[in-house]
Amino acid sequence: MLKLYYGLGTCALASHIALEEAGAKYDAVRVNLAAGEQRKPEYLEINPKGRVPALVTDQGILTETPAILVFISQTFPQAKLAPLDSPFSLAEVQSFNSYLCSTVHVAHAHRTRPQRWADDEAALAAMKSKVPQNVGDCFDLIERQMIKGPWVMGDAYTISDPYLFTVAGWLEGDSVDITRYPKVNEHWRRMQERPAVQRALAMERA
Amino acid sequence: MLKLYYGLGTCALASHIALEEAGAKYDAVRVNLAAGEQRKPEYLEINPKGRVPALVTDQGILTETPAILVFISQTFPQAKLAPLDSPFSLAEVQSFNSYLCSTVHVAHAHRTRPQRWADDEAALAAMKSKVPQNVGDCFDLIERQMIKGPWVMGDAYTISDPYLFTVAGWLEGDSVDITRYPKVNEHWRRMQERPAVQRALAMERA
Repeated sequence: MLKLYYGLGTCALASHIALEEAGAKYDAVRVNLAAGEQRKPEYLEINPKGRVPALVTDQGILTETPAILVFISQTFPQAKLAPLDSPFSLAEVQSFNSYLCSTVHVAHAHRTRPQRWADDEAALAAMKSKVPQNVGDCFDLIERQMIKGPWVMGDAYTISDPYLFTVAGWLEGDSVDITRYPKVNEHWRRMQERPAVQRALAMERA
Repeated sequence: MLKLYYGLGTCALASHIALEEAGAKYDAVRVNLAAGEQRKPEYLEINPKGRVPALVTDQGILTETPAILVFISQTFPQAKLAPLDSPFSLAEVQSFNSYLCSTVHVAHAHRTRPQRWADDEAALAAMKSKVPQNVGDCFDLIERQMIKGPWVMGDAYTISDPYLFTVAGWLEGDSVDITRYPKVNEHWRRMQERPAVQRALAMERA
């Protein structure tokens, strides 16, 4: 059976929602990031990067959200979570997800984990102070150019939707007002109505 | 026909090599990053993010290296650039590529584009000074845990190989000695023997 390692408030939520949308049987295991469990030997055997998510499968362990999301969509094709029969449409999904992981998540992480990229306190403060602008710029682009509506890719719900929902959930903490982005805001509201989203959130918060 | 927009010394090289490996017909168009062409209206119509690579196809324009690489592998399946019939094996390729784009490339970019994440000069210097350590740590992990050898995924050459080769090409500039990583170093040498790599490099340097 699949086993998802997640941390509260992390991008693992995207994979968690996707598993619920897929109707997968899985266990969800919380890694206590505040207590540093992700850096203990037991967890480093699961993911040597010391991060979440990690998805244990009967073929091995997968890490990195964009990879896990496509894996879920291919393993549960009846859930129709990605346009698997069109290389171009799948690439659009992947492009969106890649922007979230390599640009938007990174912009956000300069508030929550700036010590990854510098050591001195003044530099950490300088990075944190630029986060609202950077994250806001990312969401400007998502709003203007990327989200087709009502779902990210248009009429079809895909693995890009739980990922956007997850990252948009960080906006308030990043001091960015989600109501500046009407499409993103409506997407966020609409996502919360989905039973799969409600189940994943309830499990993580339990 | 496909058209690849690239910049010298950028991650677009990975897609360029993959197109050559696939035997694709394509045009390669250099964007002069030093002259700021990527921020001019003409280019922003192609890629509103103002970055490379961008791949123009007859169905639309794709951006983000991991998305473009899978698209190439699916569009030219006879080139066998990815394990397309195994969701798990494809996810392993994707996981590796996602680590390159969201962690390794980002670690490197704190030397070349630190102004993305802070404004004041001292902070930029603090970020730059940590790059050798961060990039070195990433390649420690790649060497110890990720590269199977001789190719990234083992005996089969995949889209992870040109991507690793591209990012490893930045090590010298990041003040990281590639010979600290015997498998990565051997991979880098072996890649340079491939005709497709030689053709892509010659086109970019012409």
